[in-house]
Parts: sequence; C-alpha cells; structure tokens
Amino acid sequence: MNNFDYYAPTEVVFGKQTKNEVGNYIDKYGGKNVLIVFGSDRVIKNGLIDEVKESLNQENIKYTLLGGVVPNPQLSKVYEGIELGHQHNIDFILAIGGGSAIDTAKAIAYGIAEPDKDVWTLYEHTRQAVSCLPVASILTIAAAGSETSMGSVITNEVTHEKRAYDDNLARPKFTIMNPELTLTLPKYQTNSGITDIMMHTMERYFTNGSHMELTDAIAEGLLKTVMKNAKILQADPTNYEARAEIMWAGSLSHNDLTRLGTDGGDFATHMLEHEVSGMYGVTHGAGLAAIWPSWARYVYQNNLSRFVKFAINVMKVDSTGTESEIALKGIEAMEDFYHSIEMPINLKELKVSPTDDEIEIMANRFVASTGGFKGSIKKIFGNDAKQIYLMAR
Amino acid sequence: MNNFDYYAPTEVVFGKQTKNEVGNYIDKYGGKNVLIVFGSDRVIKNGLIDEVKESLNQENIKYTLLGGVVPNPQLSKVYEGIELGHQHNIDFILAIGGGSAIDTAKAIAYGIAEPDKDVWTLYEHTRQAVSCLPVASILTIAAAGSETSMGSVITNEVTHEKRAYDDNLARPKFTIMNPELTLTLPKYQTNSGITDIMMHTMERYFTNGSHMELTDAIAEGLLKTVMKNAKILQADPTNYEARAEIMWAGSLSHNDLTRLGTDGGDFATHMLEHEVSGMYGVTHGAGLAAIWPSWARYVYQNNLSRFVKFAINVMKVDSTGTESEIALKGIEAMEDFYHSIEMPINLKELKVSPTDDEIEIMANRFVASTGGFKGSIKKIFGNDAKQIYLMAR
Repeated sequence: MNNFDYYAPTEVVFGKQTKNEVGNYIDKYGGKNVLIVFGSDRVIKNGLIDEVKESLNQENIKYTLLGGVVPNPQLSKVYEGIELGHQHNIDFILAIGGGSAIDTAKAIAYGIAEPDKDVWTLYEHTRQAVSCLPVASILTIAAAGSETSMGSVITNEVTHEKRAYDDNLARPKFTIMNPELTLTLPKYQTNSGITDIMMHTMERYFTNGSHMELTDAIAEGLLKTVMKNAKILQADPTNYEARAEIMWAGSLSHNDLTRLGTDGGDFATHMLEHEVSGMYGVTHGAGLAAIWPSWARYVYQNNLSRFVKFAINVMKVDSTGTESEIALKGIEAMEDFYHSIEMPINLKELKVSPTDDEIEIMANRFVASTGGFKGSIKKIFGNDAKQIYLMAR
Repeated sequence: MNNFDYYAPTEVVFGKQTKNEVGNYIDKYGGKNVLIVFGSDRVIKNGLIDEVKESLNQENIKYTLLGGVVPNPQLSKVYEGIELGHQHNIDFILAIGGGSAIDTAKAIAYGIAEPDKDVWTLYEHTRQAVSCLPVASILTIAAAGSETSMGSVITNEVTHEKRAYDDNLARPKFTIMNPELTLTLPKYQTNSGITDIMMHTMERYFTNGSHMELTDAIAEGLLKTVMKNAKILQADPTNYEARAEIMWAGSLSHNDLTRLGTDGGDFATHMLEHEVSGMYGVTHGAGLAAIWPSWARYVYQNNLSRFVKFAINVMKVDSTGTESEIALKGIEAMEDFYHSIEMPINLKELKVSPTDDEIEIMANRFVASTGGFKGSIKKIFGNDAKQIYLMAR
C-alpha cells in the first residue's frame, strides 16, 4: 500500500428537502455576501433560485447572481465573476448546478482571493494558489464530483485549452445534495454523468499499485452499484432511490476515497478526453465513454492482472480463457454497458470526426497540458495519444 | 435511503515514516502549546515520544506530557489533563496511542475549552458542548476509530459508569497513521482491535433501513477485507500490508461512512458491552465478541433478510435452507471467525462470571445510559438486556 494523505472536509447534507437549509449552512461557514453561480435557466424556471434567495434573506445574507455558465465552463465567465466579486465585496461563492457551475465557482474563488494575479496561471501550472474564498454548492447534476473534490477544470475559449487545477484550498465547505433535483434531468445528461462518475473510480482503479484491498473493494462495490442503478434509471428516470445511490457515488468517486493506497491513478483517459471536449465542445462523460475502450485496448497488456480482476469482479464476465481473453471480455462488457445507457464507444458514435491534422493538434495539446505524458498503467506520450485517437476515430 | 449529514474533516496522513511530520501538522492547524496525552510506556520505550518531541522542537512548539492513560480511560485522568491545560495555557491536544488516549484527549479538549463547566455533564448528556480545543493523534493501535470519529467514551471510575459523548466539535484535525507502529502489538490487543473495527461497521449494517446499496457494498467489502487480513496476521503479525488494510479499515469503520443512508445503526451490542467493561475492566473488543452472538440470536428474527444478506454476502455461507437457518449459519460463521482469532464468543470465554445481581445492575445501568432502550433491529429495553446477558453468561 502506498502512503497517502486524505482530506475530504466537505460537509455533505444529503436527502430530500435539504435545499431550504442553504442559508443556515452559509451562515455556519461565515458567508455574509454571496456570489451565486449557476448555468442553465432550469434552476430559475423550477424555482430553485427563488428558494435559495428566500433562505439567504432569512439569514440576512446578501447575494449577487451570476448565471450563464456553460458546459466545459469558460475562462471569460470566471473573469466576469472575479470582477463582480470585487465590485460587491463577495466573501463566499455558492454554485448551483453540476461540475461546470462548481468548477467556475472555485476558479472565481481563487481569483477574488488573489486579486493581483491572473487566475489562468493556476491552470497553466506556473504557480500555486496561496488562498481561496470559501465555496459551497447545491448539486443538481450527479456527475463531476466537484462538490467534494479538490479539482476544477476550466476551458480557455480563445486558445481551446481545457485545463485542470487541483488544490485542497478549494475543497467546498458544504454541499447540499438532494436527489429530487436530478429526477428531471434529460437522459443524455444523466447517462453522461453516470459515465463520468464511473470513470472517476476507474481512473483510480487502473494503476500499477498493489496491496490496496480495501480501496479495491470500495471501488468495485461502487462501480457495481452505479451500473445496477443506472439500468434502473433507463426505464424509470424518476426513481428516487436509484438517483440517490448514483448521486452519492458521484461524490465518493471523486473525493479521493477510491484512490487511497494506489500510486495516484491513471487519468490518461481524462486527459485525452479533455482535448476532445476542448476542441469539439462535446459532453465530458460521453467523451470519456468514446475514448476509454480504445485506451483500454491500447494499454491492457501492461497490467493484465488488473484488467482480469476488473473483468471478473466488476463486469462479472465468464472467467474461462486466457488472461488476455478475460481482460478483453471485460472491456467488451463495459462497451455493452455504455451502449445499454446510450453512450458512444468511439469518436464516430460521439459524432466527432477529427481529421489527421486535428488528431495531431489534440495529441500536441495533450502533451502540453500533461507536461509530456500521463498514465500509470502505461505512460501515454504524444505518439501514444495519437494512436489512441486513431483507434477511437 | 434516509437523509444524512456526513462530516469527516480529519486529514489522514497514512503510511511509513509519517510520524516525523507531526510538528508540521500541528503548526498547520495552529497549535503553539501542546498537551501530549498517552497511555502505555511502550511509546516511551520505543522512542516514539522522543521523536515527537524533536519534531515539535523543530517547529518551536511547546509541549507538556500527560502519560498513564489506561484502557477504559478514566475521568480522573481527564480532570488531571484539564488542570494541566489551564496551568500551561494549552491550545492543542495531541494523543499518542489508540482509542483510550484519543478519547481522553477529546474529553480534556472539551474541558479546557469550557472551564466553568464540569466535563462529565457532557457524558451524562445533561448539556451539549459549545466549544472544544483542536485535537489530533498519532495512532498506534488499530481499533477504536476515534482518530476520525466524533465520539469519545470515558469511564467514571467512582460510579463504574462508562459513558459516550458524540459531537462534531471533537473531530480530530489530523491523524498520523503509520502501520509500522502496530507491528509489535500483542496478539490479544490486535485481535480485540479487529473485533472492535468490524463491530463498528456491523452496528451500522444491522438496521431496519433500506435502499442503502452503496453503503452496504462498502460495509460488506470492509468486513471481508478485515477478516481476510486478520487471518494473515495470526500467522504473520509483522505483515505491513495486512496491518495497513486493518488500520485504514479502523478509521473508515467509525468515521460514519458505513452508516450513511441508514436509520443510524443499531449499537445495542456496544451499549451492552460498555456495562461489561465498565464493571469488569475487560478489553472492549473482546467484550463485544462475547456479547454479539447472544444479541444476534436474540434479535435476528426481527430482520431476517438483513441477517440472511450478512450471512451470504459477508460470511459466504452456503445459501441452502430456510431463511432462519441461513441467518443462524451466518451467526455461527462469525463465532467461528472470532474463535479463529482467539476471541471469546460468550462471557464465560471472556472469563467473566456475573451473578444474577450483577446482571441486574448491568441491565439497570444499560437503561440509565441509553435513556431507556437502544437498538434498531430490535429496541433493547432493560429486560431484553438482562435476557441477552443471561444468554451470554
């Protein structure tokens, strides 16, 4: 088992009718002047924003609204939020939404806390943050896991670069997770979220570490629970219990619990996908499903026993045949699962057709954003990235 | 799935050679003047205290020592620590040891923070804490899970009352968990710890809740991982990897992760045991093993499907027969496991022979400390407690 540091301080407030408590929790964590960051009009139309305002009014907490965050959230919106923050003396950022709103909130929180520095330099990894405003969320989409994670991902829409910055400073103070808010999510968003959730654990599961039995048991249990409940939601999207299992899995899958004792995880698929959604604006989860099978086939021989364990313990494949055959059956079973939730298993099914030149550009950006390579099972360099994009095309 | 609030902010620093970092972490969390609380001379003899002193000296952090904490830690030691705290302007409590040292540290931290109130009234549940000094630990025994939990248990040695107080205020700031420090633990202590760890999850698993599939998957994975590695330690007590799995399981088993979405757990066995160790001073884990089988046989008909699930998923019993037969096979399999790690399965094997009068006294104290009854699977009142003690005798 590798040494690890685990820090997951976010208070999770989970269940029905929890959203009215937001004012109490912001007060508890010291917020007086809140920037509310959100994306779609769904949260205005369904009355959620009004309920939040009322809860804040009851606690005499001031607020300023910043809507219009888009999927693959953009740097310009972050700058807009930082500007608003300075104008209104903001001391607390509340995101309402999913990963896009929360990641934007984190970036704004860094930016306000260090007014003399360009926040994008964090995402360029040319410096580290020294402070960050408190962030919290009301989660409306189970997917990114940003509600309890240290990470945020922002796209510079001018350069088409999608970059991540991880820092414990931005771990949210609390998150209000009411599965009822996810009951009406469109199917494609639900299923992209499910893919993202599973991939956060799969990225940590596929490593060359060893002796991490408890972490493996948790990861395998999480993946099986998500797949079981994902299937329920295909036929019964308003099933509260299935939504609740998946929503909670989304947090545990990305708060690092499923990484502990490993060598840190692989995450090559994530970095490969960032270049796809950075260039084509596709939904992150669907992009992951389109890349993972090609990545898996490209690397599985590098740690056959790990892929065999996955095939048998998670995908429950028939354990006859050679190790390679079992590993490949596991990858195929995951493709079948993706198809069962209407996710793509390659770029063509994602409806993205990169030219050779575009693949070259994505591979080069992959190299730039990873500092050369990414991966634990196999170090993926620029040429490997190109091969995987070609396999996925 | 029931609503839940989950708050586990303790920073976990896990692995080899982590103990020298203690000064850095106390500095990070603002400690300037530390009370070091410990129990056995083992931590003096093996040089651990000296290493801690050196690490604190390097950060110019002052410290005062308080040794002599005993198993089933006593209220008089808590008062001694509070007195020392006031004398030396203590602002941070560091426990070195297991549950006894950490629970004592938490109680001292409450006591120093509210100098005009008797700390024992918290444990009598006649008031709630409003503040608490920061607490942290260097863990040397995998068992109680107090290193990340909200709980502490103190024995009033005058009245023989063993009482618990739970409050998020006392969640430790950090815990340094180096499995190497547990390699030389005596077998009986190791195995009592293993029993305590498993019971913390079993208390949460045996409930009447439903739809908590992810929590169940984590609980079942944890119990199987602990049992597997417990067996390894019987033959190979210095096996680092097995010690590491069990040590990490000890924290996850009591930081509430395995409770989420349930109705809060059962905990009748814990409260029944507190009266046994309160009266006879036995090791808590061994006491739990001596009580659980009788509790299980007394209550299993109240939630047969839960005991069947446990028997099949955790204890891997043959699933033929009636539900009652399968449930009983699960209980027997747990007894076999206890025997395999040299734990008692009744009071006789624990070498405790309570008279009828003593059982009456324990049952009365159980009623007093629980406020009338305890339990989820079945509410255990005074007469039920008496019956279970008689079954276990």
